[in-house]
Amino acid sequence: MNRREFNLSLAASLVAALPKPSQAQSNLRVNSARINAHLAALSEFGKNPQGGVTRLAYSEADLQGRKYAMGLMREAKLDASVDLAGNLVGRRVGTGGVLPPLVLGSHIDSVPEGGNYDGDVGSMGAIEVAHTLAEKNVRLRHPLEVIIFQNEEGGTIGSQLISGELPEKQLDLPANSGKTIREGIRILGGDPTRLTEARRKRGDIAAYLELHIEQGGTLDAEKINIGVVEGIVGIKHWEVAIEGFANHAGTTPMNQRRDALLAAAGFIQAVNRVVTSMPGRQVGNVGRIQAMPGAYNVIPGKVILTLELRDLDSGKVDDMFGKIRAEAAGIAERTGTTFDFKPTSASYPALTDLRIRSVIDETAKGLGFSTKSLPSGAGHDAQEIARVGPVGMIFIPSVGGISHSPREFSRPEDIANGANVLLQTLIRLDATRLS
Amino acid sequence: MNRREFNLSLAASLVAALPKPSQAQSNLRVNSARINAHLAALSEFGKNPQGGVTRLAYSEADLQGRKYAMGLMREAKLDASVDLAGNLVGRRVGTGGVLPPLVLGSHIDSVPEGGNYDGDVGSMGAIEVAHTLAEKNVRLRHPLEVIIFQNEEGGTIGSQLISGELPEKQLDLPANSGKTIREGIRILGGDPTRLTEARRKRGDIAAYLELHIEQGGTLDAEKINIGVVEGIVGIKHWEVAIEGFANHAGTTPMNQRRDALLAAAGFIQAVNRVVTSMPGRQVGNVGRIQAMPGAYNVIPGKVILTLELRDLDSGKVDDMFGKIRAEAAGIAERTGTTFDFKPTSASYPALTDLRIRSVIDETAKGLGFSTKSLPSGAGHDAQEIARVGPVGMIFIPSVGGISHSPREFSRPEDIANGANVLLQTLIRLDATRLS
Repeated sequence: MNRREFNLSLAASLVAALPKPSQAQSNLRVNSARINAHLAALSEFGKNPQGGVTRLAYSEADLQGRKYAMGLMREAKLDASVDLAGNLVGRRVGTGGVLPPLVLGSHIDSVPEGGNYDGDVGSMGAIEVAHTLAEKNVRLRHPLEVIIFQNEEGGTIGSQLISGELPEKQLDLPANSGKTIREGIRILGGDPTRLTEARRKRGDIAAYLELHIEQGGTLDAEKINIGVVEGIVGIKHWEVAIEGFANHAGTTPMNQRRDALLAAAGFIQAVNRVVTSMPGRQVGNVGRIQAMPGAYNVIPGKVILTLELRDLDSGKVDDMFGKIRAEAAGIAERTGTTFDFKPTSASYPALTDLRIRSVIDETAKGLGFSTKSLPSGAGHDAQEIARVGPVGMIFIPSVGGISHSPREFSRPEDIANGANVLLQTLIRLDATRLS
Repeated sequence: MNRREFNLSLAASLVAALPKPSQAQSNLRVNSARINAHLAALSEFGKNPQGGVTRLAYSEADLQGRKYAMGLMREAKLDASVDLAGNLVGRRVGTGGVLPPLVLGSHIDSVPEGGNYDGDVGSMGAIEVAHTLAEKNVRLRHPLEVIIFQNEEGGTIGSQLISGELPEKQLDLPANSGKTIREGIRILGGDPTRLTEARRKRGDIAAYLELHIEQGGTLDAEKINIGVVEGIVGIKHWEVAIEGFANHAGTTPMNQRRDALLAAAGFIQAVNRVVTSMPGRQVGNVGRIQAMPGAYNVIPGKVILTLELRDLDSGKVDDMFGKIRAEAAGIAERTGTTFDFKPTSASYPALTDLRIRSVIDETAKGLGFSTKSLPSGAGHDAQEIARVGPVGMIFIPSVGGISHSPREFSRPEDIANGANVLLQTLIRLDATRLS
């Protein structure tokens, strides 16, 4: 038994000691046809001719989608409103007195030319869970909240406003729609002058659960039903400047060149080699590159490229960067160039709650599903909510691992499976002493 | 004795059989102070604050520089005029009757932010040779022409109009100055409706000589005085499109990626490996690159880059391309990408005349200079004139091999040396039966 297995086993035994839900509650299942119909209806808002949606935060399509979701919340007997930060919140009181709420959430805004599943599945899944509980007259001990966070794709803005982590100056930056966040909050029905009142502090949330598509191809490739998310990876970005010497590409002999693009080619391969040579699920990417002056007949004198590294362990990110930097020094030596690394952003890993992880795993297995623990390589609102309460995330397979694309797809049965795991995890957590 | 040595020896023996110039003619030398003063004066037209010049063809600076050069031609007792193609031509009759002219030439237009030597050295050198002959009252058998070709940097336009190779439709393309070539010809004093009259046919030129800076670093690095140019390399260009699959850089495991930029990195290294693994002075360059969509957090799904290959032997260019293409096929296989090569331009090698090459080499050695035979990696007007008559080119060292830059520099003594080789080669060719 390794440390991870020991921890999971310990958490499971703690959970096992608490009261079990009733048989009637354990038998509850979501309505698969309804959740998939709601997803199809939602995909009309911001629909693109070539498939998928462009439902940018604060756009007309976003407003229409939120209006639709608010209607669904009300059908699910949730008390729906917009909080001061512009998040859409559906509430139902619990039977247990002054307990903090159990919160389910996700988002419905999309990237430009995005798909119909990223965020939408978790949002429609959360409402479906509330709907199922309401139509079967199941009341939870804890208050229930469904939150559709605003502008997740623009940098988890709505959840950062709840965790209190968004710097004031960021409010005036333009979002993908072109509007500033401050303008966007007003458009959605929030109040940018009263944002501190939207914040929650530690203890204000009993637990937070988010259902989401994996966005990667691991579950699909390994034919696993449910992913138990270990946490959201930390992400570091650098802008890398490589300086060589621009010269005439016809007259400069090959052995007298200081070609910045040839150095960059070695660097891109070194990044891949370092990232893939360590065990684990860390990732690295060079996504943008520019060679200057940029002509057929001029040896590139300067290259600017981007480097991104992600892992659940920020120590490993630093370790990879150290190795990449050492490789760059060797390339610089061999090619007569220099490398300069400018850090441009850093987010730190957010781990999910060990007990909740264990409940999700047990619940999924109890429903007959195969499970796999894995990190989330993408950012989610859950990473922000983890600052104020324990969180858990449930992944379902993305076919082919495709995401942020009109070709993004999750099967209807996987969506229903995920919503059932969300429902039953919620029920089990409600029966749990969480604080 | 290899084939090249045999050919040179054969050519030398043919030349040796012809009448020698007089001792007085062999003792002639250019005025080093004067040619360097003329170069310094020329560098005022289009001078940039940071050094060097921007003297784009058809610009005000170009017109001023040409006016200055025309004055120098007249001081050198040349009959100066503008031909119908806008080239500046200085003529002096010969003593030998109806012989075709011996032509010396180069250009004075520059690239944007260019230097003070590329083209200028050959232009001032040609006028200096004419001036030296005139002031010493040396009359050649052949008529003498000095041509300052228009718009060399925009693609050897003036010399192409003389060789008849410029397609009509190209006249309406904008030059670096923003003006079309057709407008430019009119601005310079030519007549774009009578261009066919500017053409010369095979036999119209007895021989053409061009003095030029090397633009590469070979002569400077090896401390050689004079480069005997074997020819102007052929150049082929391709636009290379690499298709992978764009995906989320956080959620897509490393082993499931089809990263077009990682494939491009392998390709750039393969180009370098193929070009440098063959003996010879061939060169290859990847000068421009774009990765799409081009974001920190998206695996590049497509890369467009440029490939340029140059050599004096077009068969070797094709051979290199074949090897590069085979390497690309292997990279495509390993990375799950595809490569598409679109040829975008091709110019064929132009060899200098073997006899003239031999005269240049003998003349330079006779003057006490070290020589080296080498290809010209850059294009020159000589490559166009080679279509209508035998040509020779004389290179002098470029310090550090820097060109097309304000830092371009050739030493005053090397400029005088080159002009003396030009003068004495001209005198020897004049005494030679050339047709």
